[in-house]
Amino acid sequence: MPTQFDPPSGTRDFLAREFETRERAFSVIRSVFSRYGFEPLGTPAFERLDVLMGKYGEDGDKLIFKILRRGEHEETGEADLALRYDMTVPLARVAAAYGSQLPVPYKRYALGPVWRADRPGRGRYREFTQCDVDTLGSVTPLADVEVICAVNDVIAELGIGGFRFLLNSRRVLAGLLEAFGVPAGLGAGVLVTLDKLDKITPAEVSAELAGRGLPEANAAKLVGAMTGDGAAERIRDALKSNEEGSAGLDEVDALLSLLAGQLPPGRVVFAPAMVRGLSYYTGPIWEISAEGVPGSLGGGGRYDHLIEQLGGPDVPATGGSLGVERLLLLLPEAESRSRLDVAVTVMDQRYATRSFAFAAAARSAGLRASVYLGASGKLGRQLKWASDQGARWSLIYGRTEEEAGAVTIRDMTTGEQSLVPVGGLAGYLARLAH
Amino acid sequence: MPTQFDPPSGTRDFLAREFETRERAFSVIRSVFSRYGFEPLGTPAFERLDVLMGKYGEDGDKLIFKILRRGEHEETGEADLALRYDMTVPLARVAAAYGSQLPVPYKRYALGPVWRADRPGRGRYREFTQCDVDTLGSVTPLADVEVICAVNDVIAELGIGGFRFLLNSRRVLAGLLEAFGVPAGLGAGVLVTLDKLDKITPAEVSAELAGRGLPEANAAKLVGAMTGDGAAERIRDALKSNEEGSAGLDEVDALLSLLAGQLPPGRVVFAPAMVRGLSYYTGPIWEISAEGVPGSLGGGGRYDHLIEQLGGPDVPATGGSLGVERLLLLLPEAESRSRLDVAVTVMDQRYATRSFAFAAAARSAGLRASVYLGASGKLGRQLKWASDQGARWSLIYGRTEEEAGAVTIRDMTTGEQSLVPVGGLAGYLARLAH
Repeated sequence: MPTQFDPPSGTRDFLAREFETRERAFSVIRSVFSRYGFEPLGTPAFERLDVLMGKYGEDGDKLIFKILRRGEHEETGEADLALRYDMTVPLARVAAAYGSQLPVPYKRYALGPVWRADRPGRGRYREFTQCDVDTLGSVTPLADVEVICAVNDVIAELGIGGFRFLLNSRRVLAGLLEAFGVPAGLGAGVLVTLDKLDKITPAEVSAELAGRGLPEANAAKLVGAMTGDGAAERIRDALKSNEEGSAGLDEVDALLSLLAGQLPPGRVVFAPAMVRGLSYYTGPIWEISAEGVPGSLGGGGRYDHLIEQLGGPDVPATGGSLGVERLLLLLPEAESRSRLDVAVTVMDQRYATRSFAFAAAARSAGLRASVYLGASGKLGRQLKWASDQGARWSLIYGRTEEEAGAVTIRDMTTGEQSLVPVGGLAGYLARLAH
Repeated sequence: MPTQFDPPSGTRDFLAREFETRERAFSVIRSVFSRYGFEPLGTPAFERLDVLMGKYGEDGDKLIFKILRRGEHEETGEADLALRYDMTVPLARVAAAYGSQLPVPYKRYALGPVWRADRPGRGRYREFTQCDVDTLGSVTPLADVEVICAVNDVIAELGIGGFRFLLNSRRVLAGLLEAFGVPAGLGAGVLVTLDKLDKITPAEVSAELAGRGLPEANAAKLVGAMTGDGAAERIRDALKSNEEGSAGLDEVDALLSLLAGQLPPGRVVFAPAMVRGLSYYTGPIWEISAEGVPGSLGGGGRYDHLIEQLGGPDVPATGGSLGVERLLLLLPEAESRSRLDVAVTVMDQRYATRSFAFAAAARSAGLRASVYLGASGKLGRQLKWASDQGARWSLIYGRTEEEAGAVTIRDMTTGEQSLVPVGGLAGYLARLAH
C-alpha cells in the first residue's frame, strides 16, 4: 500500500545497503571506461524544453517531464524546461557548444539518472540510471570494437556471466530488404516487425508482415531465411549478389575478426535477425543478451548522422548504452555490510573526550568508528548497539580501564577481550585494520 | 554571450577536468562521513508537490521548480511534482516512511544536486550540489560534537585551511533577548537583524533594531555588548543571572570542552553574535567561516522538532550542511590530468588486432590505454595524438617491430625508445605502472 511518505510513483529511495551496492557498480563502470580513455561528462538534470521536444518521436515527447516557467510567468501554466530524457541529446548539445575544446576523437561516458513519465511497472521506473559510452569523430571500425570491448569489460567486471553480443549491421538489413523484394516504402515497418522475432513466433511475424502489405510469399521466405538453424549462413548466401548486403557483411566480418582477438570465444555472434529498434543507426549494430534474461542488457551501434540531426555538428559517431537497472538486478547478492568497524562505548560523560579520541584513533587507522550516542550508561545496552551496527570490535573505557591507563578491546564475534594500554592503542588498531 | 547550445540559465555542463575535480571532492566527503559511521541516503530528484510546498516559507515556495502533470492532465497546466529543494524535507519523509527499518540513532549523509529557481549570479546556481549530514534520535551533545568533527575532517581532508567553527546556542540568544529587554513579539525580527552584524556596521544594526520597534537605548546596549573586543566575556557576564542564557552557555561550554580534545587549537570559538538565519534550531548552532571568504562554508545545529514539523516522526536531531559549491572554489588547483597513460599506434589496419591486445595488456597492468582511432597512417600524426592525450608512453608496432617480434615503447616526455619483445610486454608494462 503506497502511503503519503512513499517516494513519488515510479521513483525509489535508496537506503544505505542498496545505495552502496549501486555505488559500487557505478564505480566499476567509471573505472573501466576511464581505463579505455573515455572521459566523464556531466550535464544538467534539465534542458530547455525546445532542446528536447521533437527529438524522441511523438511517443517519446509524451513521456518528457516538463517544468513550469517560474516567476511571474508561472500562472500561464507554460513549461520552459524539461527533465533529461536520455544522454544522447545532451551529448549533441555539448558537442555543438564546446566543439573545439573537445579532444578529437571525443570519447565520453555519461552515467546518471534520466526521467521518463512512463507507466511505472515491474522494473520500469520514472527515474532510472542510464549509462552511455560514445566516440565522436572516428569512422574506423576500431572505434566500434573499442566500445564493445569496454562494455564487455564492464559487465564481466561486475561479475555477470553468461552474456553475449549479438552483432549485425544496418546495411545487412538494408540488403535483406532488397534481396527479398520488400518495397522501399515498407522497409522501416518491416524492420519493426522483424525485430519481434525474439518475442513472437515466426508464423506471427509472417502474418504481421503480410498485414503491412508484404506479399505472403516474400514474407514467408524472408522469415524462413532469418529463423531456425543455419540462419546466418542462409543470410550470407542470400546477400552474395547484393551490393549493400555484401558491404554490410564485410562490416560485420571485420568487427568479428577484430573482436575475436579481444573477447572470449563465443562472446560475440553474427545475428542477422537483430534489428535494434531505433532508425538512426547507419552501420554496425549490437545488443547484449544474457541467459534467462528477457530483453537486452544494453546495445548500441554506429550513428553517423544523428548528432547533426539533433542540432550538433556533423560528426561520425558510434556508441552504446548499458541497461544499468537490469545489470543491477543481475549482480551477485552483496554481503550484508556493517555500518561500523569499531564501536566506542561512553560509560560516563566524563570519559566522553577519551572516547572521541579512541574513535579518532580508529579512524586514523582506516577503520570506521563512532562513539555511542544513546542515553544508557549500561554496558549491555551499549554492546547491543555495537552489535546492531555490525561492529567487529568494541572499545570499552570505564573506571577499571581509567585506573589501568588502558582500554578494553572486545572482539564482537568471539567475545574475547584484551586490555590494551592507551599508549599502545594506535599500533594495536593499525594491526586490527591490517 | 549565451548561445542556443549553452545549458539552461543557472546550470552547468561539467567537462572531464571539472567533473573529475568535483568527483574527487565528493569522494573525500563520502569517505570521511562513512568513516564516522554515517550512511548514505539517496532520494528521488523530485517529490510530490504537496510534500515540498509550505515547508520553506513564502520566499522558498516561489523558488521551487514545479513539474507539470503528465498524460491527459497535462493541458490543465497543473503541477503535481517538484524538484528537490533541499535534503532535509526528503530526510523527514524517509524517517516517516522507513522508521523501524532505520538504525537508532539514524546517522545519514546525503550528497547530490538540489534545484532552486533563484536569479542566477556569481556563484549562485539553479542546480547545485548540497551535502547534509545528520543524526536523528540522539539528544546527547556528543552527537553535535560528532557532526562538527566529521565536517571538520571533510574540510581539512579537502586540503582547505584557515577555517574555523563559530559556535553559539539558540538558548544563549534567547537569554540575550530577555536580558536586554527585547519584547517577546520582537524576538524573531531582532535575531534576523543581529544576524547582519558581520555584514553591516554596528550603527546600522542598531538603527535597524530601532526601526523594528526596539527602544534605542536597548538596541545600543545589545549591539554594544555583542560587538568589539571581549564581546564573548561581556555576553557571559550579562547572562549570569539569566536562566535560559546560562543553560545556553553551559551547552556551549560542554561542546567547547569536548571539541577541544578533538580539533586543533582555535578551530572552534564561541561566537555569541552568530545567529543562523533559520528559526527551527533549538540548541547549539554553528557556522564555518574561512579567511577571506564572504559568507560561510557551511553550518548547522540541533533542531529537535523540525523533523516532526516536516511530517516526520517526533525525533531529536542535529546536523549540518556543507556549502559544497563554495568548498569547490577553495580547492587547491588540480593538476592538469591526462586522459591516457598509454597510447597505442595503429600503423596499418592489419596490425589492429595486435594493437588492441597491447592496449588490453596495458589496462591489465592498471594503466589507461587506447588505440589510435584516427585516419592517418603516419607515425608523426599518431604521436601528435598521443601527446594531445597527455599519454606518458606510446606503443608503436609497425613492420620493423613485426619482423623483430617486438614492440617499441616510446617515453613521451624524453623521446627515448625501447624495443621490447612481445612476450615480455606484460612484465614491462607492470613495471611502468608501478
